[in-house]
Amino acid sequence: MERKLTRRVYAGRLPIGGGAPISVQSMTNTSTHDAAATLAQVHELEKAGCDIVRLAIYDKACTDTIKAIKKETDIPLVADIHFDYRLALAAIEAGIDKLRINPGNIGSRAGVEKLVSAAGERRVPIRIGVNSGSLKDDMVQKYGHTPRAMAESALEHVMILEDMGFYDIVLSLKASDVPRTIEAYRYISQRVDYPLHLGVTEAGITYNGIIKSSIGIGCLLAEGIGDTIRVSLTDTPAEEVKAGIGILKALGLKQEGIEIISCPTCGRCNIDLISLASRLQEALSGIKSPIKLAVMGCVVNGPGEAKEADIGIAGGKGQVALFKKGSIVGTYPEQRAFEVIIKEIQEMMASGCFGDNTSL
Amino acid sequence: MERKLTRRVYAGRLPIGGGAPISVQSMTNTSTHDAAATLAQVHELEKAGCDIVRLAIYDKACTDTIKAIKKETDIPLVADIHFDYRLALAAIEAGIDKLRINPGNIGSRAGVEKLVSAAGERRVPIRIGVNSGSLKDDMVQKYGHTPRAMAESALEHVMILEDMGFYDIVLSLKASDVPRTIEAYRYISQRVDYPLHLGVTEAGITYNGIIKSSIGIGCLLAEGIGDTIRVSLTDTPAEEVKAGIGILKALGLKQEGIEIISCPTCGRCNIDLISLASRLQEALSGIKSPIKLAVMGCVVNGPGEAKEADIGIAGGKGQVALFKKGSIVGTYPEQRAFEVIIKEIQEMMASGCFGDNTSL
Repeated sequence: MERKLTRRVYAGRLPIGGGAPISVQSMTNTSTHDAAATLAQVHELEKAGCDIVRLAIYDKACTDTIKAIKKETDIPLVADIHFDYRLALAAIEAGIDKLRINPGNIGSRAGVEKLVSAAGERRVPIRIGVNSGSLKDDMVQKYGHTPRAMAESALEHVMILEDMGFYDIVLSLKASDVPRTIEAYRYISQRVDYPLHLGVTEAGITYNGIIKSSIGIGCLLAEGIGDTIRVSLTDTPAEEVKAGIGILKALGLKQEGIEIISCPTCGRCNIDLISLASRLQEALSGIKSPIKLAVMGCVVNGPGEAKEADIGIAGGKGQVALFKKGSIVGTYPEQRAFEVIIKEIQEMMASGCFGDNTSL
Repeated sequence: MERKLTRRVYAGRLPIGGGAPISVQSMTNTSTHDAAATLAQVHELEKAGCDIVRLAIYDKACTDTIKAIKKETDIPLVADIHFDYRLALAAIEAGIDKLRINPGNIGSRAGVEKLVSAAGERRVPIRIGVNSGSLKDDMVQKYGHTPRAMAESALEHVMILEDMGFYDIVLSLKASDVPRTIEAYRYISQRVDYPLHLGVTEAGITYNGIIKSSIGIGCLLAEGIGDTIRVSLTDTPAEEVKAGIGILKALGLKQEGIEIISCPTCGRCNIDLISLASRLQEALSGIKSPIKLAVMGCVVNGPGEAKEADIGIAGGKGQVALFKKGSIVGTYPEQRAFEVIIKEIQEMMASGCFGDNTSL
């Protein structure tokens, strides 16, 4: 799928936009005053595959935590700041890689100029983040609670920065309503070429939050819109990263690790497929190489789909047929399916089938 | 969002297409020979909110199970049949409400005519289900493994039915690849006005399967495409229904039960929001009335979003502010948040705020 070409900005070492890989974000939920706990969470997020971490910076003491984390890791950090441009100045001073502020509510014109000048000097990009829940009254009166109101509100903030000759801008337009979120991003994407940070805000608790975010973020990504994503869940930040990576993988925008294509089972299925697929997922979850494994219950769809996969099995009565890149390797008793697949994948990895020779 | 207007068909009492509510499907994975187990699963699916249930009909004995289930419930049943038109005739005889067959591979022309004539007489609609994994070789040679090949393959089957004067048709074009699935449905949606059954096939184990299905199905629904959906998961059929309903609710296509808008928490959050939101979700899960509840950690986004919700709380330091339809009702200690919200919702329900007086 073709991606919309946006301007590129850099959050520290991380490129955003302009054809860069889509990055996955999250935000710490420890007290930012607690540097040790926050650092531990940042490390946990890095381990989960997070590309860039946001911190709430709500007072001056929070900026000490930025310094402390910067000493320990080079993962790009974003400061989330409301209402006070001096905190943003202090965050830049502390080495922050990106700011999330809305210039229209961060202080006086003179204050914003100071901040923008400092950000410009160090090439610290600014994300303008409009949430449908906190639109200004005049926008709501003019456009109602609409995607248009969100976009126009973002453009108002953008103009403040552009007026000051600042263009290292990222934009987000989040609503908790999925169709409204999608429409707002589509609208702004046609108006500007700044990179877009995608998210559905307040998406809720894990299960429904993942569904809402998958639709909202996924739908836009599938249209080529979006440069960096954050899944907002009422759950741990690492869960947000897991879901974000899942969305990218579902769209083929990140190729990494095992992808199991497994059928939903039906009355035709004669093997214990749910258990087999789950055990394989578990056993193969540590693999970084992109491997497509098909686990199919029957001969109707099995062989066809398994042919597209790197390796696959299709179940029969008490036995399974094993395929590798479209060729039948053999037939085995169902009880041996698990070990046979693991062994074959190990051998394929060892022989460099997947571009490296990492072992399980 | 505007929906594409399709022809309407009826699977028993259930309208599909032509502006009917989008129905949620699943498929039993018990042995269809085991009538008792299959009936139990059908009942379980009805309880989960399933609108229409598919059964694999792979031999004559399976059709006895259709009869047995029909005696006990009126939920519409679909027979999934491959390669043998006689099974389809027997399923119609047994009272099936809809067939899933591909006319091009169900038997001789004479056989298909018999079947289509029987289906036409009883107004039993036929779903043509094309899966990217089982495309015929000539289509793959002509169009490659593309969305176009899937659509053209479906149209070939459609022509057989149209030639026989049969138009009670539903179409599905499923791939395990999400972008390919989306493209195939977009393509066919522009070519025909038959109702579309949406699904991503072999989406995999629950977690990734839900992400893939949410993107694929959700993206199309958000464009107004799709009349009935099935989430295919390597999990129990009831889990498929839960995810399907979740997708419809995320898009506002089904309004039922509690919707919790809760923030992801961050370093500003001073209350134990994840736990509070989860406990509320659990306690309120039985409610059928559509209630929008906001559970927000801080004052930055909290009050704004909470104003849009029927009822909401925004956390402060050790306390919460309670909102009802935009008005502050009061401030309470954090420990009382749970009971206060439950009590308010009970009172709102009792006084008919949500269109009925169901109690918790």
